[in-house]
Amino acid sequence: MRYGVIGTGAIGGYYGARLAQSGQEVHFLLHNDYEFVKANGLQVDSCDGSFHLDAPFVYNRTDNMPQCDVVLVGLKTINNSLLTELLPPLLAPHTLVVLIQNGIGVEEDVQRLFPGVQLAAGLAFICSAKTEPGRVNHQFYGQINIGNYSCRDEALIQRMVDEFNNAGVRTRLVEYHTARWKKAVWNMPFNGMTVALHTQTDLLLKHPSTRQLIYEQMMEVIGAAQHLGVKDIDESFAQKMLKTTDEMVPYSPSMRLDYDFHRPMEIQYIYSRPIQIAHEAGFPMPRLAMLEAHLRFLQSQYLSKN
Amino acid sequence: MRYGVIGTGAIGGYYGARLAQSGQEVHFLLHNDYEFVKANGLQVDSCDGSFHLDAPFVYNRTDNMPQCDVVLVGLKTINNSLLTELLPPLLAPHTLVVLIQNGIGVEEDVQRLFPGVQLAAGLAFICSAKTEPGRVNHQFYGQINIGNYSCRDEALIQRMVDEFNNAGVRTRLVEYHTARWKKAVWNMPFNGMTVALHTQTDLLLKHPSTRQLIYEQMMEVIGAAQHLGVKDIDESFAQKMLKTTDEMVPYSPSMRLDYDFHRPMEIQYIYSRPIQIAHEAGFPMPRLAMLEAHLRFLQSQYLSKN
Repeated sequence: MRYGVIGTGAIGGYYGARLAQSGQEVHFLLHNDYEFVKANGLQVDSCDGSFHLDAPFVYNRTDNMPQCDVVLVGLKTINNSLLTELLPPLLAPHTLVVLIQNGIGVEEDVQRLFPGVQLAAGLAFICSAKTEPGRVNHQFYGQINIGNYSCRDEALIQRMVDEFNNAGVRTRLVEYHTARWKKAVWNMPFNGMTVALHTQTDLLLKHPSTRQLIYEQMMEVIGAAQHLGVKDIDESFAQKMLKTTDEMVPYSPSMRLDYDFHRPMEIQYIYSRPIQIAHEAGFPMPRLAMLEAHLRFLQSQYLSKN
Repeated sequence: MRYGVIGTGAIGGYYGARLAQSGQEVHFLLHNDYEFVKANGLQVDSCDGSFHLDAPFVYNRTDNMPQCDVVLVGLKTINNSLLTELLPPLLAPHTLVVLIQNGIGVEEDVQRLFPGVQLAAGLAFICSAKTEPGRVNHQFYGQINIGNYSCRDEALIQRMVDEFNNAGVRTRLVEYHTARWKKAVWNMPFNGMTVALHTQTDLLLKHPSTRQLIYEQMMEVIGAAQHLGVKDIDESFAQKMLKTTDEMVPYSPSMRLDYDFHRPMEIQYIYSRPIQIAHEAGFPMPRLAMLEAHLRFLQSQYLSKN
């Protein structure tokens, strides 16, 4: 199949490069390092085996990109308004767009921009970073879960999942709402708390006060999900996430990196939308709403506009 | 009357010096600057008129201090365990001890240490600091409210109030529980939030997200107070506190100063006790409990013991 990658960063760059290396046709949209990758190719340093793409198909605008069967969106959600302009050239009537992004409500908003387009969520469990131009550093994990949001063509989405697996990426189809909310159980506490307390996952779990607070925040997410009718998520999932994080190396989530580099944080989809959705359904999330306020304040201190 | 001051800092030093200047007999316990004050006296730079005490009665231990009619305690609450040792020499059977300290539950705990002693709360509305040895800098406000906790001798407490007023300190008797909880309406949001977001009162109120959060935290305190049967405190008091703070100069509360100088913060009485008291009465304070967790974590990062 023919793949397009919008946002060739730590996430889109890694998965797109894996597909290309396995023999799929992949077209990459690049921004800052377009010239570099055009001249030097794309390097992936990976715990699952490093490799180099000598001459990938690269672009610095989407006008001249071909229509694709599958488009992987690896942008930060704060740039999703750009999709109105970037996405149309790649869309055929059957195209599946996979939003490999953080948060709740992303597909809903992109669907509003593109009512007919087939959408899926990509939930990436991966630690990777773009450390320099044309170079992705994949440190650990790598699995991606695909949640079908509005794809009518089940053969297409299944074929994509198979091709991901053939490319060496552990991939499976999961229930959309459950997948998004399960990821939020980890994302909502840890992204914001590592920013608010300027720390990493291990220290938050080591101190009894913040460990308890993280647990309570996880239970706010689980409570909201249950209240919204999301299946297969209960208290045991909070315990599992605490245990999993205990076993991880000390980790700075993406929001902490955005904060450290004074980039806009993904407050809207990681916090505001789920809090608002839960609130409208009558379920309050006071601790996470407080964390949202902290983040908005902190961001306003380094961004001129908030 | 004869007064003793335990903790001759920004608060105890100011009120004690005012009383001494007005002609009362005041005995000061000093610590770091005992030698300096013994040699040079005590200087008060004040917005209400500066003055110097040339030869105050000063001590560096309480063994040789006389029994007093009134003892003003200006210690930080984190040092209250010292009272077991410091207080007895000053106590006559009729002595009134005034705890000019922050938080909820202070009198209860000191009463447990000294079951028979007459206690009152001193709620200081003052901005002052000990800027150098033997020198108190009183910048603005200065009022003190006295709440009777366990003083049976109404003539004594009234006489003290009169002598404070004669000394130029605006002082009045107020209902104990109402006074402590009203002060908590301001103290609980602003002390912790200026630490957590490393900022001052004005910026917290300027940003809509944190202004709303401060309001919600005030309403948690007011809700707890109402739930505990405290009178004369409702939503309008939160509005009044927001307005008063809007009109103040940008301000760093005492906890922010403790944090900046890596001193222990008064988490126990400003947060843990009121949260626990409200919790036991069935009223949750999730936002302030979260703030307490933030503060405990932050303090553990700079104190070896927490």
